[in-house]
Amino acid sequence: MTLKRIPALLATLPLALSAALAATPAEPIQPIPAAKPGNPAMVELGKKLYFEPRLSKSGVISCNSCHNLSMGGTDNLKTSIGDHWKQGPINAPTVLNSSMNLAQFWDGRAKDLQAQAGGPIANPGEMAFSHGLAVEFLSSIPGYRAEFKKVFKQDAITIDEVTKAIAAFEETLVTPNARFDQWLKGDKKAITADELAGYKLFKDSGCVACHNGPAVGGNSFQKFGIVSPYKTANGAEGRSGVTGKDADRFNFKVPTLRNVELTYPYFHDGEAATLTQAVDTMGRLQLGRQFSDVENAKIVAFLKTLTGEQPHITLPILPPSTDATPRPHPFD
Amino acid sequence: MTLKRIPALLATLPLALSAALAATPAEPIQPIPAAKPGNPAMVELGKKLYFEPRLSKSGVISCNSCHNLSMGGTDNLKTSIGDHWKQGPINAPTVLNSSMNLAQFWDGRAKDLQAQAGGPIANPGEMAFSHGLAVEFLSSIPGYRAEFKKVFKQDAITIDEVTKAIAAFEETLVTPNARFDQWLKGDKKAITADELAGYKLFKDSGCVACHNGPAVGGNSFQKFGIVSPYKTANGAEGRSGVTGKDADRFNFKVPTLRNVELTYPYFHDGEAATLTQAVDTMGRLQLGRQFSDVENAKIVAFLKTLTGEQPHITLPILPPSTDATPRPHPFD
Repeated sequence: MTLKRIPALLATLPLALSAALAATPAEPIQPIPAAKPGNPAMVELGKKLYFEPRLSKSGVISCNSCHNLSMGGTDNLKTSIGDHWKQGPINAPTVLNSSMNLAQFWDGRAKDLQAQAGGPIANPGEMAFSHGLAVEFLSSIPGYRAEFKKVFKQDAITIDEVTKAIAAFEETLVTPNARFDQWLKGDKKAITADELAGYKLFKDSGCVACHNGPAVGGNSFQKFGIVSPYKTANGAEGRSGVTGKDADRFNFKVPTLRNVELTYPYFHDGEAATLTQAVDTMGRLQLGRQFSDVENAKIVAFLKTLTGEQPHITLPILPPSTDATPRPHPFD
Repeated sequence: MTLKRIPALLATLPLALSAALAATPAEPIQPIPAAKPGNPAMVELGKKLYFEPRLSKSGVISCNSCHNLSMGGTDNLKTSIGDHWKQGPINAPTVLNSSMNLAQFWDGRAKDLQAQAGGPIANPGEMAFSHGLAVEFLSSIPGYRAEFKKVFKQDAITIDEVTKAIAAFEETLVTPNARFDQWLKGDKKAITADELAGYKLFKDSGCVACHNGPAVGGNSFQKFGIVSPYKTANGAEGRSGVTGKDADRFNFKVPTLRNVELTYPYFHDGEAATLTQAVDTMGRLQLGRQFSDVENAKIVAFLKTLTGEQPHITLPILPPSTDATPRPHPFD
């Protein structure tokens, strides 16, 4: 190339830039990447622990009880059922794609999946066990002892290993290749005209201000009830309980909208039974906009294109208790 | 062949007969055959229904809650937890190999798996739903409507189809190729000398009088407490509740011993926490024999050779509820 040609090249730059932008339009939502494989032995151990009801006092409640992988990683209840049928205080968020969240729980009190995993085990209203009892239970079973040793290279099982393995499994629970992702990647026939119109409305109305990124949410805390207050009998106050700041009252982690068709009912109190209700409430309270029935239906149609490939899970076979294993106490 | 040779052939008959017997010795226990494939579409539908918590009033109790396929097809509790944490009256028997039972439930009140499957759904102390509500729920979901139509070739879903599909899935839940089955088939190294000694003791002591056949039980009703009475706070009276005959009081279906290592605790009241306790009680009450610790340990070692290959289950993805689907009522 000679210097003489440079001015000519410069003249074509705006065109080249515009072509590049057209090839990768700046959509506020990006496709979900496939799960990284992780440490297969740790993931397999974590899967056992995720399905392990003996990590609860009663012997019947596992992670999968409230974050059911047959049902979008939720229990599809307003709030969950805990030990002795106690009513939970808040809606169980989906475990699917939860590794993409900026923090865990609605109020973000756990910084990551490992920090989250220890919570329900020891919560008297959930699994009602303790970290000490969990380790005692696991340590009494040769199958678990061998598997922990293989993964963590030491004899004594610790709660840190337990939660690390559960988190490693949960990191595999991503749902790529939704129809919307196929559209984002260039397959213009992957979604219908109505679904596309719903997406445009979703963008133009400002939903994407909070629901963006690969998880379509999960990456910020926002006040619920910006334009007008959200009325609920639920006592959760959100982020202020963590930060101690009054300004954070009713700030909640923005939930992912991935697989939202499967994760009903909606909101931290689970009071929106349907997507239609949820879209209507969000429009009015967060955007000051009353969507018409037609607009609402288009947004709902778009939201249903966010259902991805569900994780393919082979049910684990759990190693049996031994004579030395403490027994569950469901009715004490 | 000429007639002249017949006497010579007859002379060899006793030898041939003895060789045949040696090749297939008359053991009282036979290997479990692999599951018949059945109707794959019906089995797949039945698997969804088996894992379907929305067949319960609360939306959280499925067949798999009490017959957990991660845990030997049981919940490993003395008695199960039902709707609103109600305590069940009797130990949940394993679903594994249950198609081989002469009847279902401890008292045999259901003639087969299909007759059994409808019971827990409508039992107020278990799933607390009703057959009508189950059909209403399933009929509200396009995914289920399509799958039932594909399998049963008609539009309207019936409870008969629901239970038929669940039974079809359960018929696949057999556990072949236990180490003991390998031994039965001629691999003399498949079990240890101690385990073999335990089997001989199991036979010679008379355990095989009731625990025989491919399922090592499940094929007769027997009185619990033959030599001396069984003392329990559990109120179940067994077979007499079905036949109305006083002679059938405390007659229960003999449980299968297949996978017995996984199906603790034992007996209809679940009061035997360990195999050691169960063997001791059975020896004393059913056979009038006090096994020594060494004998007991040998029998237990044999029993653990009955753990077969567990069914390989891919967790089903359940079709989501629609706006028209009735919601669960866990706290009413």
